[in-house]
This record gives sequence, structure tokens and C-alpha cells, in this order.
Amino acid sequence: MNTMGRLFRLEIFGESHGESVGIIIDGCPPGIPLAEEDFHRDIERRKGGGSGTTSRVEEDIPRVHSGVYRGFTTGSPILISFLNRDADSGPYEKLKDIPRPGHGDFTARMKYRGFNDSRGGGHLSGRITAGLTAAGVIAKKIIQPAKIEARILEIGGHKDYGSLLEKAVNEGDSLGGIIECMVKDLPAGLGEPFFDSAESLLSHIIFAIPGIKGIEFGAGFRCSIMRGSDFNDPVIDIEGRTSSNNSGGINAGITSGNPVVFRVAVRPTPSIYKVQDTVNFRTGKTEKLQLKGRHDACFCLRLPVVVESAAAAVLADLFLINRLYRD
Amino acid sequence: MNTMGRLFRLEIFGESHGESVGIIIDGCPPGIPLAEEDFHRDIERRKGGGSGTTSRVEEDIPRVHSGVYRGFTTGSPILISFLNRDADSGPYEKLKDIPRPGHGDFTARMKYRGFNDSRGGGHLSGRITAGLTAAGVIAKKIIQPAKIEARILEIGGHKDYGSLLEKAVNEGDSLGGIIECMVKDLPAGLGEPFFDSAESLLSHIIFAIPGIKGIEFGAGFRCSIMRGSDFNDPVIDIEGRTSSNNSGGINAGITSGNPVVFRVAVRPTPSIYKVQDTVNFRTGKTEKLQLKGRHDACFCLRLPVVVESAAAAVLADLFLINRLYRD
Amino acid sequence: MNTMGRLFRLEIFGESHGESVGIIIDGCPPGIPLAEEDFHRDIERRKGGGSGTTSRVEEDIPRVHSGVYRGFTTGSPILISFLNRDADSGPYEKLKDIPRPGHGDFTARMKYRGFNDSRGGGHLSGRITAGLTAAGVIAKKIIQPAKIEARILEIGGHKDYGSLLEKAVNEGDSLGGIIECMVKDLPAGLGEPFFDSAESLLSHIIFAIPGIKGIEFGAGFRCSIMRGSDFNDPVIDIEGRTSSNNSGGINAGITSGNPVVFRVAVRPTPSIYKVQDTVNFRTGKTEKLQLKGRHDACFCLRLPVVVESAAAAVLADLFLINRLYRD
Amino acid sequence: MNTMGRLFRLEIFGESHGESVGIIIDGCPPGIPLAEEDFHRDIERRKGGGSGTTSRVEEDIPRVHSGVYRGFTTGSPILISFLNRDADSGPYEKLKDIPRPGHGDFTARMKYRGFNDSRGGGHLSGRITAGLTAAGVIAKKIIQPAKIEARILEIGGHKDYGSLLEKAVNEGDSLGGIIECMVKDLPAGLGEPFFDSAESLLSHIIFAIPGIKGIEFGAGFRCSIMRGSDFNDPVIDIEGRTSSNNSGGINAGITSGNPVVFRVAVRPTPSIYKVQDTVNFRTGKTEKLQLKGRHDACFCLRLPVVVESAAAAVLADLFLINRLYRD
Repeated sequence: MNTMGRLFRLEIFGESHGESVGIIIDGCPPGIPLAEEDFHRDIERRKGGGSGTTSRVEEDIPRVHSGVYRGFTTGSPILISFLNRDADSGPYEKLKDIPRPGHGDFTARMKYRGFNDSRGGGHLSGRITAGLTAAGVIAKKIIQPAKIEARILEIGGHKDYGSLLEKAVNEGDSLGGIIECMVKDLPAGLGEPFFDSAESLLSHIIFAIPGIKGIEFGAGFRCSIMRGSDFNDPVIDIEGRTSSNNSGGINAGITSGNPVVFRVAVRPTPSIYKVQDTVNFRTGKTEKLQLKGRHDACFCLRLPVVVESAAAAVLADLFLINRLYRD
Repeated sequence: MNTMGRLFRLEIFGESHGESVGIIIDGCPPGIPLAEEDFHRDIERRKGGGSGTTSRVEEDIPRVHSGVYRGFTTGSPILISFLNRDADSGPYEKLKDIPRPGHGDFTARMKYRGFNDSRGGGHLSGRITAGLTAAGVIAKKIIQPAKIEARILEIGGHKDYGSLLEKAVNEGDSLGGIIECMVKDLPAGLGEPFFDSAESLLSHIIFAIPGIKGIEFGAGFRCSIMRGSDFNDPVIDIEGRTSSNNSGGINAGITSGNPVVFRVAVRPTPSIYKVQDTVNFRTGKTEKLQLKGRHDACFCLRLPVVVESAAAAVLADLFLINRLYRD
Repeated sequence: MNTMGRLFRLEIFGESHGESVGIIIDGCPPGIPLAEEDFHRDIERRKGGGSGTTSRVEEDIPRVHSGVYRGFTTGSPILISFLNRDADSGPYEKLKDIPRPGHGDFTARMKYRGFNDSRGGGHLSGRITAGLTAAGVIAKKIIQPAKIEARILEIGGHKDYGSLLEKAVNEGDSLGGIIECMVKDLPAGLGEPFFDSAESLLSHIIFAIPGIKGIEFGAGFRCSIMRGSDFNDPVIDIEGRTSSNNSGGINAGITSGNPVVFRVAVRPTPSIYKVQDTVNFRTGKTEKLQLKGRHDACFCLRLPVVVESAAAAVLADLFLINRLYRD
Repeated sequence: MNTMGRLFRLEIFGESHGESVGIIIDGCPPGIPLAEEDFHRDIERRKGGGSGTTSRVEEDIPRVHSGVYRGFTTGSPILISFLNRDADSGPYEKLKDIPRPGHGDFTARMKYRGFNDSRGGGHLSGRITAGLTAAGVIAKKIIQPAKIEARILEIGGHKDYGSLLEKAVNEGDSLGGIIECMVKDLPAGLGEPFFDSAESLLSHIIFAIPGIKGIEFGAGFRCSIMRGSDFNDPVIDIEGRTSSNNSGGINAGITSGNPVVFRVAVRPTPSIYKVQDTVNFRTGKTEKLQLKGRHDACFCLRLPVVVESAAAAVLADLFLINRLYRD
């Protein structure tokens, strides 16, 4: 259930306040050069630290336990883990019976019958995306020369969000945002019609990132107010290039060679310092809850690299699968 | 690649102008009562016929070839097919080298190196969703007493779209729309954190339906302009009920017992009668293309039942998987 | 649960006395020439008719419903079915509550809670292997120039089994046998260490054939009485050729380029005309059972082509997966 | 490719002389009590140390990194690793271009194009089965009250193999053997007809253990010389109990409630101290090879617990899947 992919396959593990979090990457072709430094830039991008992000800052040095030998992938499973060092489980003990609104506390309790490690969200924590980011570093190498880039489009509805963010932080509240991801120079032919459409697989992995509430490709939701004569992208050469890109580089589930473009909606961080209404499982009564601890006021700011990594993992899989269709 | 699901599993087949289209449903529990009449209502809903839908109307009688015996599912694979009777492949022969804008003609040609059956879109056609609709009929029985309902929210940006639609039809153009799907009385605990989150699996299958360009859960894209204090749904009882439903009934990838709500954006039908720009593969030159044949001016009108069926199939799978967690 | 394969994937369906049996082959590369005649030889080999085989002889014309267009595979799922024409369900009605020894009557009843179609074994019947044989025809094309051949090694313990078989038939009894399968000119590098070892996957599909009770590779069970100095195959050139083949062409789960060789043990046909002891589910009492109807006295005679087909299907999958490892 | 299972799923990783080896167990139900001591007995059984087993003895303390909290499984992935401490890679450097007969050196080189970690067999080493053994400890808890036990049946063809083994050790040679595994008190109904038959899945995982060359269920290869009237197991009560067990507790791929019995053939250890013929990849010439280092003269002696664990893992999966069929 914690796995994704057909050939390039991911398996995640770990808990926010456990010993470590990480990932196994299976099905990675042998011979890909891989050094610890290759992870630095993306791991760094995922870290908090600036305004609007948590003061819990893990060192996050990726430890490669297997599958890499003398600087190259071997073709065997690659286990990468990140130690948890800066966890403070104190505040969570009191929350055991009080579900935080907007969090998975209630749903996890129901699903795992109370046996889950609920400290810091446990296995449901956004911290698990550290492993996904590491996998993305390898996936990006596989899909070369395709280039993938995700960036913040707006926070709280604004492209210029500095003062808005400051205000939310000061008020103990949180903000959401929109991220746009673009993949250029991807070959035509990736993805399948129907169940393994490129949109299906991309949305599948993107919604695996905690806190995403929407995704749209190309013109996206705007397509619903367009006419076919506006929406259809006119083909302009035998490479399949089109003069517009309302389809977001995907037709009938298959990439067309035009840039793949999608946007995701990120909810505001659920952990806020304002008083919230909830229910105490033990007493059965409603209760006022005020959270403490360290949280991102806008975790959306840390997500672009995670969105990139997730998308790259799916595209690497499609890239390898597509060899099936070659002569 | 044409498969979906872990326990309740679907495998689709067929081409728009081939002999038939259909589906195999594997992993269906034995003992579910199933008669031919059970399919009628949903198959009927999927058919065209009204204003804005195609005049190609297949009789669409589902033929059950296996897996049902004496009125009950047996636990063996259920093969259901629909014969293609009303196909007119004439217009497609000329289009062999001329990709229709907005269609998968180009991407399929690239992927399958020209070997695909391109008549009427072949295996990439929306006609394949007939099988999905049949599977939905069974899936809906599995998730009982949960109830699922999808409906048109707006067409071309309007809730009241009659004249708008008439106008588009008359001008040989097409329209898109938005569909909302709601699932009530679903148990808490379905879905997994991360890769098999309820949102991941629902979006995966929804994007398998041709022509979907966006999906959002609960508050959806609007979440990006909300503050955490507005977005977080306050918990009001120990059943996990919340006083708002911005999360769309899913937290941390797991259903909460509140209604699951999502909306999908449907693009305008790609086939229009207006003249469009494209390229001729054989000559390499740009060309004016005017389509003939019978098409939906707004295939969104036929999709609510398909959206329901697709969602039901995923939920049936999660429903069965969840028995893993029972004591 | 009725599926096999990662890229070249099979999904079987049907019941012995239902409308039809068959298979969907998904993940077949486009552009493979395929005509109805291509199936004739192997379908013919699987048919009964000679001494020791059943007098129920189906015409067994494979009907290709999808995935083939103008004489070539399209890359879309290939549905192939065989109509059941010569079924005689009469004798089975009486057997509803009386499990035939050696058959799956009891286990199916337990598994499916009585909802299974038990006529002629239903979905558990060896008739389902008709679809597997059809898939094998395609798989054999994919693994070319590798050649695969299975043959009877012995029946009832004898290479020369003619009179033995005659005697068993006359006495209303049945015989088992051993089949050897050899695959030549297979490339080195197919299969994975551990869970997807070539032996794992081959044995997986071989045991899917009803009635197989053992499989051994290379020296097989004899290896247990050999010393390492005898068993190890000396390497004689840089192509990896070895002067003996005790490993059966597979080392550490991966093919070596030497012939892949395995043998399978086939049990005697469970349906015999001699009186047998069993229990009546309804009365709870032991009962004497004498079967009627038409049965193979030695269905092993019909299995070589099925063994070939099953093995070819797995090897085709490994063949396609191996493109992952290419530069 | 390094994964197994549908609900109870295993993913292995590691190299013999890398940092560690281990396993992720995904899909384990929450609430199973699990302490470090639970692993001791089986890990101890797998260790070498006695006559005929290697003098490389790892301490093999299982380190549980995730998925267990306060003494119970949480329902999240369980990562268990074993550090490699006692590895001596010296002898392997010289062997880089000289494939050891009977080993995977050649096949791995071909598959991974020379990028694999070949020290001590790397990822292809039997050391990887440490993780499988740990998974087995958990799996055995899931299938309770079923009991599983594997034992040496014979070594080098003899039940009383003491002096035989001593002789082989002294001569620098190695021996193989046969292991029998029996599972009692398993419920009827596990396994599927065809591709996921109990025999298919058991043989799949058993052949994942390095060095297995054959498997047989119940009467096994002996069935080929039996008549149906001898082979068929007479049913003696409505629980499905039979007076003989030639089918090995499995009919039509489904367990019958009678004991599941199978035997596996284990090849002699490929590493021997006798001089062997092989080829030098660099020079292209044949060469005499004499191995040094520490090896099991009969690794079969260490395998019973691995066979048990592997079988338990598959049965745990079937056990959980079978809840699908419950009302």
C-alpha cells in the first residue's frame, strides 16, 4: 500500500518521530552515476528555515544503504534513509485522545484501531516526503534530457505574498497556495490510454503528498468554460507541436512531446496556534484546543521540490515502460 | 497497463469500431446478486440521444460471459462485453494521416508506431467507458450502504445551460463542464497514507476517463486562498463528524466518514464541425480540416454515471482491502 | 487473482460449461504479425481425441475480439475466447453435494461459499488452459529467436507407455506422467535475483496448470545427492557456455544463455470410472461414487503445449522487462 | 522486482558485503505484538556455526526501524535490517573477472552490465534471506493457529548424514539435500485457481531462496507413476479430511484444510575448495580456479527456517486476501 510504480518502483517507510524515514527505490537501471552531493540541492530546497516554514530543521543527510557501488547504481534496490534527530514528541502525548482539526489523527485512529504511532503524525507526516525527494533525484537522471521544474504560483491567492505571509505568521494562522510544474523535452508516447494515463499516474502520486486538494492539467478547470474551437490545440508540424497547450502536453493519456504542465492546490497548514473546536475521544465532549510546537505556517513553500520529485518518479517509470513499445 | 485495482480489479479491452468493447472484473466476492436488469439504468444514463449528445446510439446490451451463475456472482472473473453495431468507419479512413486537433491521433501514432486501430479513436475512444459503467453497477453493490451520486454542476460555466448548448450545437462547436460527485455513508478508514491515498486512487481512475482535465476534493482549489483557521473542519462528535467539509471527507488520504466530495473539469468535445488547423503526416504540410460524422457537442452530459462508476470501483477495492485492518 | 505478468500480462476468464473461456493479453507490443492460422498448430496439439484423451472434443476456434488490426497486434489488450459447444452438464447436477476425490469440488465450495459454477469444474477446469495456449502463440513470437519445446518424458513411469495406457483405459483408471521443457537460444540476463527469479516465475505459471505436483530445473531433485564438484557447471567460454547444465540454464535466478531445462510431474487424471469413497455434504455420510461422463485417462498427454505456452508467457514478460537494463 | 505479495508484501534490499541487508514488510495488520526477542529463535536457526556451515557468523541482531510502536505493529511499513560486520571482501577483488562455477557471477555481470556489487555475491547472496527470516516471524503470527515446520529430510541422499558431511568438508567439497515443510491447521479456501494457486505462490517464493532446484507437493514426482485410483485422496468427512494426502493439502490451487506438505531440493554449496575450470573474462582464456574464504559445505543445513519463513509469508498473504471471500 506504500508502493508506487511498475518498473521504477518506490516503497516508503518511517514515522515522523521514529528512528528514521526513507524509501526503497527498486527497478532503477544499473550504471547511473550517483554521489551523495547529487542529493544536496533538492534536499536543501525541501528543508524549512525561512519565514513561514517550521523551526524544526533536520540536518537531513541522505544515507544510502544499498544499491549503489563505486559511484553507480547497481540495478539492485536502493535504500535511502534520513535519521530523525530534532523531534520533540512532548506536545503529542497530550493530544492522544484529542484529534487536531484538519489532521489525520481521527482517520488514522479509525484505520489502525489505535495502534499507529501518532507522534508528529507518525507515518502520516509530511516528513515522509524526504524519501520521495531523494527518489526524485534519481528519477530526474533517468528522464534526461527532459527537465522538470515546479514553482510557487501564488500563496493565499497572491503572486506577491510577502506581507500576507508575515501577517498570517503573526496571527498564528496558516496559508495555502498553488504550485505549477512544467516538464520540457519529454518524448511523445509516455502513458497509456485509460487506467495508466499520464494524468492518472501523475495525479496519483501528487495526491500522495499530504495536503494537496486539487490538480489540473493544461487549461485545467478553465476548460469547462471554453469551446472546443478554443480549447483544441492546433497541430503545427509533424513533430506534433501545437500552437497552444490547453491539453497540457497530454492527449488521450499519452504525452505529445509538448510541455507537460499541471498545477496543484495546496491547503493551508493544518497546525495553527489559534484556538480550535474539537472533541475529546475519552470524555466524548467538545473541547477547545490550542496547539503548541513548531510548524510551517505555509508548508506549500517547501513543496515545489516534492512535486517535482513525485512527478519525476512517475515519468521515470513511464520512460522505462515505454521501451516495451520500441521495435 | 489497462488494469486497475488490488483486490477488486478491472481490465478493459476493445476498440470503438472493432467487434466489441468491454471489461473483466476480477476479485469480485461471490454471492452478490446480479441480473441483466441491474445494468439498465446506468447504461441508459451513459447513452447519448438528447440535445448535445451524439446521434450514434448503440443499443448497448451488456453481455455477461462468465463469473455469474444462477443470478449470483461466483467469485470468478466476470467478463462483460458490448457489441459495436452502429459504427461508421468511413470518415476515418481519410483521417489516417491527418491528426484531429484535441484528439489522441498523434500521440497514439507515436506510441504504437502506426499499428493502432485508429477508427473512431480505436482503443482510445470514450466508448471504452461502457465497460467501466458496467463494473460500476457491481461496485456500487459492494460499497452498500454507501451511496454515490454524480451530477452536472455547470456546462460552459453556467448552471442553466440550455440556450448556451443549443447555440454551440448550431455553430458546430462544443462545450465542456463540471461534474460533482458525492459519496455518502462511507465508513471511516478507507485509503492509505501516501501512495494509495483515497484521493490518489480516485483521481487515478477519474483521469482514466477521456477528457478530464482537473479534479479537486472538498474546498479544492479554493483552499489555496483560505487560511488554516477557515479551512480546518472542526470535529463535533466522536464519530468524527465535522461542522464543515473543506477536506472533502478525506484526511491524510483516509476517509473520515464525512461525505466524500470531488469535482472534475471536463473539456469540450474535441470533435467539432468548424474548420481547424492541423498537419498532414504524409505531406508534412499544414492543412485545413473539417470533420464530419456524429459527435457529442458536449460529452460531459453523458459522464456523470461514468464518474460515479469509476469512483465506485476504487471505493469497492478500498472497501475490500480494509478488511485487512479488521481484527 | 486471475492475472500474471508485469509487462506482458495475462488475465483469464470462463467456466468449463459456461458460454466460453478465454484470455486477455495486455502489454503485448504493437506490430507483431498475427493471423488466425498462427493458433492452429498449438490449439490442435492441446485438443484431445487420441487414446487416453477425452472424447469431448471442442472445435476450439480462437475468436480474436480486440487488439489485432489488419494482421498486426496494435498494442491494445487482445481478447481471445473459445466458445463451449460440446458441454454435457447432466452428470454434474447430481454431484452438487458429493465432492469427487482428487478434484477441487470441496475446496471451491469452501472458498466460494457454494456460489461457484461447479459444472465440469467450472472456472477450475483444465479447459481454461485453452486461453493460455493462445497467449503462448503470441509469447513465442516475442521471444524469438528463442525456441521452446516441451515433450512427454514418460507416462506411468515408462517412456514406452502404449500398452500401459491401454490397460489403464480399459480398467477405467488413469495415469500421470512427466513432461520436459527446453528453451534454447534464450539471451543471458532474464530474471531477477530472489522474488522474480526465472525459476520463481516459471514455477509460478507452471503450477497454475491444473494437475501439476512438482517441478525441477536442470539436475533437479538429483542435485541433492550430488557433490558441488559434480554439480557446478564448468564455464568454457566468455559467452558463459558451460560443459554441463546441472543448473538448467539459470544461475542466481538469472538465465545464463545455456538452455533452460525443467521437468514437471503431472498427476493422474482425477476423474476415473472406478468406485471411490467420498462424503455426501447433505447427508454427512460417506458414500460410494462412480463417475460417468467423458474424461482423459491421461491428460498429461495434452499438456506439453500448455507447458510450453505457460513458460513462453513468462519468458516474454522477462524479455520485455529486460529492456529496463539496456543502456 | 524485489517484491512479493498482494496485501502482506515484502521488499528486500542489501548486499552481502554492503552496509546491511534487510526487508520492508508492508501491509502487516496493526496490533500484532512484536518484540525483539520474537526474532531470536528463528534468526539463531538460520545462523551458521556447526559442522558443514560457514565460519562467517554474523551477530545478526534485527534492527526494527519503523512500523512497530510500544510493542505492537502499527499497520505502517516495517523496516528491519541486519548490519554486515564480519564481511571479508579481500578474496573477491581477484575474482572480478573470473566467474565462479555454480555462482551467479556470470549472469549478474550480463544482467547488470558490470555495475553490480559482486563482493560476496552482492545482492545475489544467500545472506539476503536474513530479512526473509525476520518477515517469517511476523507472518507466522498472522497465520496462527496454523503451525509451520520445515526440517532436513536427507543430506547427500541420506537421512543419517554425519560422516558423509564430515568427509565432504575434509575434501573441500560440498553437499546438497532435501527439506520437507509441513503446515498444519491451515483453513480450507486459501489460494486461487490458476495464476495464484497455493502451489504457484509457494513455489514462487521458495525458488526465490538461492540454491533451490526443485519443489514437489504431496506425492510430488511420485504421482507420475501412480494411478488415479491410488492418487486420489478419499474424502472421509464433511470437513474435507482425506484418508491419504497425495495432493499435499491443495486441490485445484486451493487449500483443503488437510496439512500442506512440500519438499524442496537444495543444490550443493557452489563454493568449494577443489580446483574448478572456468574462464577469465579479461583474457578470454580458460583458467583453473581455487576458492578461498569461508563457506558452508552444506548450506542446506541452514535453510529449513528460511523455507518456513518464505512459506509463512505467502500463506499470511493468502490468509489476508481470503477475507475478501467472507460474507
